[in-house]
Amino acid sequence: MTTERYERGWEKLMEVDGKGGTNVIQSLKDISPDLGRFVIEFAFGDIYPREGLDLRQRQLVTISSLTTLGGCEPQLTVHINAALNVGLSPKEIVEAILHCVPYTGFPRVLNATFVAKEVFKERGIMMQDQQKDSSS
Amino acid sequence: MTTERYERGWEKLMEVDGKGGTNVIQSLKDISPDLGRFVIEFAFGDIYPREGLDLRQRQLVTISSLTTLGGCEPQLTVHINAALNVGLSPKEIVEAILHCVPYTGFPRVLNATFVAKEVFKERGIMMQDQQKDSSS
Amino acid sequence: MTTERYERGWEKLMEVDGKGGTNVIQSLKDISPDLGRFVIEFAFGDIYPREGLDLRQRQLVTISSLTTLGGCEPQLTVHINAALNVGLSPKEIVEAILHCVPYTGFPRVLNATFVAKEVFKERGIMMQDQQKDSSS
Amino acid sequence: MTTERYERGWEKLMEVDGKGGTNVIQSLKDISPDLGRFVIEFAFGDIYPREGLDLRQRQLVTISSLTTLGGCEPQLTVHINAALNVGLSPKEIVEAILHCVPYTGFPRVLNATFVAKEVFKERGIMMQDQQKDSSS
Amino acid sequence: MTTERYERGWEKLMEVDGKGGTNVIQSLKDISPDLGRFVIEFAFGDIYPREGLDLRQRQLVTISSLTTLGGCEPQLTVHINAALNVGLSPKEIVEAILHCVPYTGFPRVLNATFVAKEVFKERGIMMQDQQKDSSS
Amino acid sequence: MTTERYERGWEKLMEVDGKGGTNVIQSLKDISPDLGRFVIEFAFGDIYPREGLDLRQRQLVTISSLTTLGGCEPQLTVHINAALNVGLSPKEIVEAILHCVPYTGFPRVLNATFVAKEVFKERGIMMQDQQKDSSS
Repeated sequence: MTTERYERGWEKLMEVDGKGGTNVIQSLKDISPDLGRFVIEFAFGDIYPREGLDLRQRQLVTISSLTTLGGCEPQLTVHINAALNVGLSPKEIVEAILHCVPYTGFPRVLNATFVAKEVFKERGIMMQDQQKDSSS
Repeated sequence: MTTERYERGWEKLMEVDGKGGTNVIQSLKDISPDLGRFVIEFAFGDIYPREGLDLRQRQLVTISSLTTLGGCEPQLTVHINAALNVGLSPKEIVEAILHCVPYTGFPRVLNATFVAKEVFKERGIMMQDQQKDSSS
Repeated sequence: MTTERYERGWEKLMEVDGKGGTNVIQSLKDISPDLGRFVIEFAFGDIYPREGLDLRQRQLVTISSLTTLGGCEPQLTVHINAALNVGLSPKEIVEAILHCVPYTGFPRVLNATFVAKEVFKERGIMMQDQQKDSSS
Repeated sequence: MTTERYERGWEKLMEVDGKGGTNVIQSLKDISPDLGRFVIEFAFGDIYPREGLDLRQRQLVTISSLTTLGGCEPQLTVHINAALNVGLSPKEIVEAILHCVPYTGFPRVLNATFVAKEVFKERGIMMQDQQKDSSS
Repeated sequence: MTTERYERGWEKLMEVDGKGGTNVIQSLKDISPDLGRFVIEFAFGDIYPREGLDLRQRQLVTISSLTTLGGCEPQLTVHINAALNVGLSPKEIVEAILHCVPYTGFPRVLNATFVAKEVFKERGIMMQDQQKDSSS
Repeated sequence: MTTERYERGWEKLMEVDGKGGTNVIQSLKDISPDLGRFVIEFAFGDIYPREGLDLRQRQLVTISSLTTLGGCEPQLTVHINAALNVGLSPKEIVEAILHCVPYTGFPRVLNATFVAKEVFKERGIMMQDQQKDSSS
């Protein structure tokens, strides 16, 4: 019945979130499978493929929203990976999180920054600033 | 002085939260014992025994509030157990959490759903949907 | 394309929220019409018609979630009306809001209670307790 | 002492927020003038002029953070104006707010969308979708 | 039955919140009278009279918590008045709100500061800084 | 360029947060070093050294704000240590957290209380109430 939205959503989920996203869907299978279906159909089938913002802009918005919400470390892990997948640079991601300080304060921004640090470490990413910094 | 409320609250805490609730009170003994006393007297002595909603309705409200708050995984663990104790079915609990998506978004709902998954696993509960699902 | 979900959602929106809901959709027409469409298709087409919880249970969950979120007075107005529409009694609604005190504190509960007071006044509802109370 | 940061911040505040921003600073003069100074020096002197994100990206992040926080309608008014000032299109702004639905739910997104509607109305902006929509 | 806590709470409510507090209780009479009773018995009968912090310290904590919560402007109005009632200076109140910026960001702090401005205006309070400022 | 604020902030950070604070700054070095710089310059260089509130009052406000925010356990660990460093007693800290119950509910207060319990344990602090309690 909802095949078309589901397929479009699944493709977008694969493109944006990759393995991190499919793991979430998989882990919902035996507890709330329709929740996973709604993530695919609604978030990735309805919202992500829309015109108006490109995927890099959408990930800026997503990361800012998750940073501000707080307590969403697992989702931030997935979406910081996704931000890299769609072409945001590590510097842009760290800067987007930092830009939230005036609006949501240091604690939420610190927590999100440490999630980014973990993601970058797992992907073997070294910040350019870090390289410059280590030479001083 | 507050014996009556305390006793009524303790009984209700035992009925609703069971061991999960008494563990919380116990762990407060050496740091903030009156906080534990207020949980018993106010939350369970004053609020829970009131007319107007039965215990199953109260646990729907509690789970929805904790899901929405976010960052309350330990309290959700206690109250998803409590929801089962007062007769809500696993399906009703998962559905109540899912129903919060339009109001509070996917991340808080995902976090609460994974708490439910842990609680059900510890209690050896298998979702009916899961059984059907595994046959497909 | 999405006709079936939209129609099912529109019917459910009419049944649950009535005029309050359609006003929201109408006011989105000239600024973000697809947001209105997603409210209909996703919240009311996908979530509300599901099995697992009846409409009275769903409105308990909705009111608890909106009370806890805070800053959602317009949505509470719509959904307290909706709660009455699907058969929750004024007493159950007030009690559900009150039950959130231990989880989200007095300020959010006070704000939600005053929204209920406005809704009841507009609908000419007088609380039973109020009648008893006024005789004392 | 802090002249340089203050001047850089004031210029940036004028560029980004324009009159809406200076009104806020002005209204703080007789109650908490240093709070206004910190908005200028820190938010606009330290954060906004940084490299890593351009002003259009920064306003996407700001609007997403304020939408998610909730209860920030006055700040959203200023920053939706600011988003237009730095070159985001009305469509991008509405889309950024809409993109927050999966993360923060409908109520916060509805509230932010109605703020955008007010700002656009005051500035005489008509959405392109609206024009198409009105012809149907 | 709960007379002693109620009386102790009512006295404390009168001492701390004064007319602002009793107005809230009064306005709950016909919608959720027990909610008003719990404010008196629990918040003012159980918590406020405790040792460990004096009333000025308690109001610092209260104002900080309400500022951080957001969307609690009515409660902030009552408790900024209360803070003045128990002997906090206008400067201490404004400074406590300002001190929350690093933790909760500018928007919540701006909103709380403008509530303080209204309260001070109604009570004819002029900030010392304001006097110095107006001479410059 | 910002040497003076940075030095003043670093000194204040050392005085208030001690090792817990410098660890945070250190762990930001290779991911977002300017975020660490802003914590020092803005939070500790601009805000903490201000007149209007002494350090004990500031830590009451900080702990109350972090308790209310939720999901800030790492920051609470640092700032409960800081509260002890500037002379608040364990009893005052526990009481400040407890005082937040009426405003933010039990779950956030329980989470903060258990952070305090960990901090006190690490520092070998035993609550006086605990000693009395253990004799009963």
